[in-house]
Amino acid sequence: METYPIYCAGKFIETTGEWNVTDPFLNEVFAKTWLAGMEELEIAIQSGLNLRGQLKAMPAYQRYQILSEISNGLRLQRQEFAELLSRESGKPVRYALAEVDRSVQTFTVAAEESRRLPKEYISIDWTTAGKGKEGLVKYFPVGLVAGISPFNFPLNLAVHKIAPAIAAGCPIILKPSSSTPLSTLKLCKLIDETALPKGAVSVLPMNRTVGNLLVTDDRISLLSFTGSPEVGWEMKRESGKKKVVLELGGNAGVIISKGTNLEEAITKCVTGGFSYSGQVCIHTQRIYVIRGLFDEFLACFKEKTSGLIKGNPLDKDTEIATMIDMSNAVRVEAWVNQALLEGAKLVYGGRREGNFFEPTILTDTKPLMQVCREEIFGPVVLVEAVNDLEEAVTRINEGRFGLQAGLFTDSLEEMNYAFGNLEVGGVIINDVPTFRVDHMPYGGVKDSGQGREGVRYAILDMMEPRLLVKNC
Amino acid sequence: METYPIYCAGKFIETTGEWNVTDPFLNEVFAKTWLAGMEELEIAIQSGLNLRGQLKAMPAYQRYQILSEISNGLRLQRQEFAELLSRESGKPVRYALAEVDRSVQTFTVAAEESRRLPKEYISIDWTTAGKGKEGLVKYFPVGLVAGISPFNFPLNLAVHKIAPAIAAGCPIILKPSSSTPLSTLKLCKLIDETALPKGAVSVLPMNRTVGNLLVTDDRISLLSFTGSPEVGWEMKRESGKKKVVLELGGNAGVIISKGTNLEEAITKCVTGGFSYSGQVCIHTQRIYVIRGLFDEFLACFKEKTSGLIKGNPLDKDTEIATMIDMSNAVRVEAWVNQALLEGAKLVYGGRREGNFFEPTILTDTKPLMQVCREEIFGPVVLVEAVNDLEEAVTRINEGRFGLQAGLFTDSLEEMNYAFGNLEVGGVIINDVPTFRVDHMPYGGVKDSGQGREGVRYAILDMMEPRLLVKNC
Amino acid sequence: METYPIYCAGKFIETTGEWNVTDPFLNEVFAKTWLAGMEELEIAIQSGLNLRGQLKAMPAYQRYQILSEISNGLRLQRQEFAELLSRESGKPVRYALAEVDRSVQTFTVAAEESRRLPKEYISIDWTTAGKGKEGLVKYFPVGLVAGISPFNFPLNLAVHKIAPAIAAGCPIILKPSSSTPLSTLKLCKLIDETALPKGAVSVLPMNRTVGNLLVTDDRISLLSFTGSPEVGWEMKRESGKKKVVLELGGNAGVIISKGTNLEEAITKCVTGGFSYSGQVCIHTQRIYVIRGLFDEFLACFKEKTSGLIKGNPLDKDTEIATMIDMSNAVRVEAWVNQALLEGAKLVYGGRREGNFFEPTILTDTKPLMQVCREEIFGPVVLVEAVNDLEEAVTRINEGRFGLQAGLFTDSLEEMNYAFGNLEVGGVIINDVPTFRVDHMPYGGVKDSGQGREGVRYAILDMMEPRLLVKNC
Amino acid sequence: METYPIYCAGKFIETTGEWNVTDPFLNEVFAKTWLAGMEELEIAIQSGLNLRGQLKAMPAYQRYQILSEISNGLRLQRQEFAELLSRESGKPVRYALAEVDRSVQTFTVAAEESRRLPKEYISIDWTTAGKGKEGLVKYFPVGLVAGISPFNFPLNLAVHKIAPAIAAGCPIILKPSSSTPLSTLKLCKLIDETALPKGAVSVLPMNRTVGNLLVTDDRISLLSFTGSPEVGWEMKRESGKKKVVLELGGNAGVIISKGTNLEEAITKCVTGGFSYSGQVCIHTQRIYVIRGLFDEFLACFKEKTSGLIKGNPLDKDTEIATMIDMSNAVRVEAWVNQALLEGAKLVYGGRREGNFFEPTILTDTKPLMQVCREEIFGPVVLVEAVNDLEEAVTRINEGRFGLQAGLFTDSLEEMNYAFGNLEVGGVIINDVPTFRVDHMPYGGVKDSGQGREGVRYAILDMMEPRLLVKNC
Repeated sequence: METYPIYCAGKFIETTGEWNVTDPFLNEVFAKTWLAGMEELEIAIQSGLNLRGQLKAMPAYQRYQILSEISNGLRLQRQEFAELLSRESGKPVRYALAEVDRSVQTFTVAAEESRRLPKEYISIDWTTAGKGKEGLVKYFPVGLVAGISPFNFPLNLAVHKIAPAIAAGCPIILKPSSSTPLSTLKLCKLIDETALPKGAVSVLPMNRTVGNLLVTDDRISLLSFTGSPEVGWEMKRESGKKKVVLELGGNAGVIISKGTNLEEAITKCVTGGFSYSGQVCIHTQRIYVIRGLFDEFLACFKEKTSGLIKGNPLDKDTEIATMIDMSNAVRVEAWVNQALLEGAKLVYGGRREGNFFEPTILTDTKPLMQVCREEIFGPVVLVEAVNDLEEAVTRINEGRFGLQAGLFTDSLEEMNYAFGNLEVGGVIINDVPTFRVDHMPYGGVKDSGQGREGVRYAILDMMEPRLLVKNC
Repeated sequence: METYPIYCAGKFIETTGEWNVTDPFLNEVFAKTWLAGMEELEIAIQSGLNLRGQLKAMPAYQRYQILSEISNGLRLQRQEFAELLSRESGKPVRYALAEVDRSVQTFTVAAEESRRLPKEYISIDWTTAGKGKEGLVKYFPVGLVAGISPFNFPLNLAVHKIAPAIAAGCPIILKPSSSTPLSTLKLCKLIDETALPKGAVSVLPMNRTVGNLLVTDDRISLLSFTGSPEVGWEMKRESGKKKVVLELGGNAGVIISKGTNLEEAITKCVTGGFSYSGQVCIHTQRIYVIRGLFDEFLACFKEKTSGLIKGNPLDKDTEIATMIDMSNAVRVEAWVNQALLEGAKLVYGGRREGNFFEPTILTDTKPLMQVCREEIFGPVVLVEAVNDLEEAVTRINEGRFGLQAGLFTDSLEEMNYAFGNLEVGGVIINDVPTFRVDHMPYGGVKDSGQGREGVRYAILDMMEPRLLVKNC
Repeated sequence: METYPIYCAGKFIETTGEWNVTDPFLNEVFAKTWLAGMEELEIAIQSGLNLRGQLKAMPAYQRYQILSEISNGLRLQRQEFAELLSRESGKPVRYALAEVDRSVQTFTVAAEESRRLPKEYISIDWTTAGKGKEGLVKYFPVGLVAGISPFNFPLNLAVHKIAPAIAAGCPIILKPSSSTPLSTLKLCKLIDETALPKGAVSVLPMNRTVGNLLVTDDRISLLSFTGSPEVGWEMKRESGKKKVVLELGGNAGVIISKGTNLEEAITKCVTGGFSYSGQVCIHTQRIYVIRGLFDEFLACFKEKTSGLIKGNPLDKDTEIATMIDMSNAVRVEAWVNQALLEGAKLVYGGRREGNFFEPTILTDTKPLMQVCREEIFGPVVLVEAVNDLEEAVTRINEGRFGLQAGLFTDSLEEMNYAFGNLEVGGVIINDVPTFRVDHMPYGGVKDSGQGREGVRYAILDMMEPRLLVKNC
Repeated sequence: METYPIYCAGKFIETTGEWNVTDPFLNEVFAKTWLAGMEELEIAIQSGLNLRGQLKAMPAYQRYQILSEISNGLRLQRQEFAELLSRESGKPVRYALAEVDRSVQTFTVAAEESRRLPKEYISIDWTTAGKGKEGLVKYFPVGLVAGISPFNFPLNLAVHKIAPAIAAGCPIILKPSSSTPLSTLKLCKLIDETALPKGAVSVLPMNRTVGNLLVTDDRISLLSFTGSPEVGWEMKRESGKKKVVLELGGNAGVIISKGTNLEEAITKCVTGGFSYSGQVCIHTQRIYVIRGLFDEFLACFKEKTSGLIKGNPLDKDTEIATMIDMSNAVRVEAWVNQALLEGAKLVYGGRREGNFFEPTILTDTKPLMQVCREEIFGPVVLVEAVNDLEEAVTRINEGRFGLQAGLFTDSLEEMNYAFGNLEVGGVIINDVPTFRVDHMPYGGVKDSGQGREGVRYAILDMMEPRLLVKNC
């Protein structure tokens, strides 16, 4: 069985807290790592704090070099990383490969942005009080960053915290999901080979009690959390004086209107709805179809869904596999059954086998059903007819979430209406809400979070402005 | 008869070259001014050169104050300026009032932009060579500016040179059109009342021989010319080392496609085609209508055109009046007649009475006809059917001009195609190419010019960057 | 006695909670207003919530017009506002006039910035996943804003919340300090005369219990608080999901090094240390002088301090008057006496008469004395010798605050060291930390707050980005 | 003898015009290439024109990939490129290696900037005329670009035209210096291996008659010339309607003031004055030393200069070798002798052996001597005493050039004065004017040119803005 020491303050170590990692498809333990305790965390914190000055002072070419080397290393080990990621998460390897490629890109973008840290040069002499003066605004690293990343994109969502931290000059302690810590720990070997000062990055799996110190410890300047809304908002309350970035979930919706290629739209909806069994923050959970297109859409959507290839995630053809664990599969099953009891209609799927849940299509749901108003985080998609765009927008807005939304249309007026009125962080035209590239600003409003990731935006959150007013 | 001394190096003076200004509607001289000779020009140049250091050093609050005062002064004398402008140019007073309002706005925007002159703060340490260094880029006034403005917007097109020059800190010598120098000379009284150093702005009507020194004199750092393509491109050749901004004409086209409010489109086309008798750089000269809408469009367009109110420009209801002078009216008449001879069909208008030319609609024109391929600068509009957007774009692109183009559509795909493929400086969706607001970047490609006006852009052209590399 | 109805949801009303406002110099009640209760607050909240869509949709020219009108109105009543402000706060009228002028400017800047709300246009096609797409980032108003402003700049610090809210398109409920609510209520009359929808701005004096609902109510999207650190950080904890901007205090320091005009530096230090009796967030509380200059500095500083004109704040010559109330004067007296007990040396002043406290200079203080490590918010300045810049920077950094710092020097190396190492929001070269102009980014790090004011920066905090990904 | 076919419209070809390339150190022909005639040029032009649409449409990830591959290829062949470059130019290989490294970086920066092409998103509704509208400004490639590059940085100055053209989406025809065409032709092999459409880049050595068609042909949209002032300004006159960027020479000066490390300054001055025998546009030609430091500076500068290692450029220790050809060496000798005749004093060097010219130091020169007022482009440095900074700035400004200037100082006031008053494109604090990194804006004012290079700035010059006004 492979072992993955944790990466604490620049050293790969084992602790007293042995921790087994399970392959969700085989349902068997396949690797071992360790949990950090309060002692290890304290070492990592001290190490990070001590490095603040040194990291702040690193010239751009060093940050660039370090981030580029990690990116290159990852590209060279693309296949190994994808397979490990696939095993720990049950994610089909085709998607795992795509995730590794995205992480390569995330590091590359961070390298580039480390040369372009925000800076402003402003005039001050707008009144006589400012005569003969001008201002420079330079951004300095905020201090020690804590990152908490989820199981569903075990590598890339950790990278979305680590790479900006290196670019910004912040030491970071990252707590990966206990289910899927391995690909991020493997990444630490690449990080360790660079000239980055040891201790600038620590990756520490932890239990919740220890991990919660990342939230409450006042020596940490920023907490960047990706995970569930309930946990996230509670963290904000307990966070003391630190800045908090929350990338939480949602129940993303897409609208199918006129003038667009329906077949292409459906293909994208199948991918958006079922890739990685819907365990995606911007999973396409709700589809609102303009009434005239509804029947055609639903029939074709069902047909394409039925063609999804189920199998071993390590098989390159597999499109859908098991969920992350039994409890989640059982939860999804319960929500679906409850919806059916309350009057929803099952169009396709609906059954659970172990921790595999079938790709499932529901219709005739009501806004207050759990499958609609909560984040299902499973392979379940609702398809509903609406009379017009306005109704669809109302439906998408009525819940408590606001991450991303999609709209298929060729109408300029519809695009403008949607952009002006959808209460979300991102509106995607002619694509599903599941669309994301790693440099774009990404994040939610309402209960879906606060702050933005997307490398440049994450860097900005990890820095604070300092104004210099000088003579000129 | 009113007299308007010219404004030379901070003094209102008369010269030996008396000059009469004619009211084109009444066809009679109504005011007198003077032409600057080489001596006056030399005084203005010397005065401008001497002030470069002082203007460069003016703090933002002074530039702001000066520009705001001019703007306010103009607003308070809105009616007087409009009437003077109407008389010298024959422009209906309703449009003259709008022009004065725009000039008020142009000065206001310049005031605001004078506080926001471009500045950059960049990192230099991208390689070891730049270690420990950072850079500031500050923009400095380019030096003495020469502006040459045309008759058709006698006030606002002069203001588009004067206001940015004050904001940028450049002295300027402006040569107004000899036909319409009065409103700009009246503006000088407002300028003279401010704290702007005397000699920073000179407004000198000149004959062509003297005026050409603005092009050839090497002490002038930038020439900003608005006028005809032939004159403009010749100036570029003779300009020596100075920078040249050319705002020339075009034969702007608009495309009427589907999914938009046809009646509203037609109303806008009537205004774009006939306001100020088409004597507008972005006059809507060519209308390409998707075949299915052609008949309805043409009928309705003709009807609305026939309702235009002809009359004395000083009458507030008047919508169309005389052209600037007889020679232009005769030229337009000749072009129209030539087109008819070559097979074009007259839909409406076509006759000349003195220097009044009827609003005229032609169809069945050919691309090589003068009315199509040249800038007609008169109240003539071509309406032609096209099979699709692509054909319309081809027709608009085939000539030598590229100023602005319009497209009425609700299709996102059509908008994208037009923006990606129309070879113009500006694409206006759901409006005529005649659309302009004073802060937007405005200018042409191909033979329509080089450089951009729109206050911020004009300021940028009037400044040059200087990099400071310093330790950090 | 003058009465000032409160401004609730677009109406000037009285409530059951009558409230007297005292003139601190005369120590007598001179005006009456009312406190809002939970009922009035609820009306204001509902009104604000209802207006969100309408304010979001306001075109730039309307926001500009409204803000400009308020600015103009304020300028025209400059003297009346200054006198009212002087009476409610005890601020010498010369400084009250300056504050009104700054508020005029704050509204003007907000008008200008309302035309320049942040917008980004980005490429998306950095990987094949983004092919044929591009992105727009538009900023939308965050929702209902709550502002809480302090007594020391009763008008301008309220304006720093109201003006950006109008520019951003956010409804706002502002709670002024109960000691000094009048000038802001008077401002409401100007606001009420504009076309701003009634209810977009409410100004409600409240007791702490009612006011705390601004912190805890989940319908409010952003809380902007200016006040004491203790209160501010507690608010962050109770703020639920809303965004929080905290402009708190500090114990700002200035460093006097070589190569600069000592006399000018001293003059600025006297102003920075004693204007409005030091009741200023960026009051110059600590002065660190390079050893060689110490004796000369202290002697001259003492002399100039002794020349400050004490008197009735309404007298235009008065430079120093009473503090805001007795309890603050007593507190300052206690801190000073405690410092003297612990070994500090009194250079000048130190006595209290009623709520007047003498301008006071101490030396030989220790970092842990209250007068040094806490925000004194009174007319007390510490002057200490240091060996070099590095020591001075260490002294300034060692406390828990980090708002602004000043450095008098002509050395480029010293400027760079200070900018790179002073842990503050702003470093002011050759001026006191008390320097502020209203458009510059302003705010603290460490315990001094989070977020920035300065109109453009405050607007940014009041908006949230929404990404549109579209075909191109 | 090695042969280097030219790269015409995507093919490596030979022509009827055989051309020998001489090694200036050995003074013998060592390689052969060919000159393009009018026929080849026409093929390249046609090919470029035809590709405009295809290059414009290339997504960012393709531009990035192509530019990155060239950068990587160059890095892998670093040594071979450096040796070839050294042989064709006589440049010591240590500097040739540095030049190759810079070219690697120039391509990398271009790759990064190809993802960040300029884009603006602006509000239009500043007046009622713009209600409901907003604007996008996108930059489109300007069309076919012609580049003309000089002998002194045969690779990197060609790359400064080729790399931005690829990033911008412009086809380019580059005419390298006939003396040093080989390294750029070798680069074409790397370009040819990428997916860049064949014909997008042509590299054509030409005689002056054919080459002049690049200036006069109206199908070329932009000419980017690096070379001598006389040739450059004549080109502007003949350039027709195309845009012209001129990177010309100068007689760069540096000022040695107080408070800085004199030894370090001298070391930098030796490098700035004598590397590549001063054949550098920003060669440190003039040194103005504050009087008190003059004697020490001159003695030490002479000593260090005398230690320069002369030798075969291919030897890695060599610091100074032959000039590019005999005629230049003879010209420099004549200028120096003339200066001595006119009263200048020879401090060091002054003799010519073949095409080697000794590193030479002069003092007591006069502003009107050729060695001072013209660009010497040889290993000659003037060192003069000045009374103060103001005098030094006057001396630097008095000539007709304005490229870069240096200032060694620790005084903030002096830095500000220099930045505000030196009439140059770049002011370098605590370094020589010879300082350049490849991403910084670089270019001259006055007779030193117009436009800026430095990748992002060159790209901007190669693009033109197009505004889209749309509903919102």
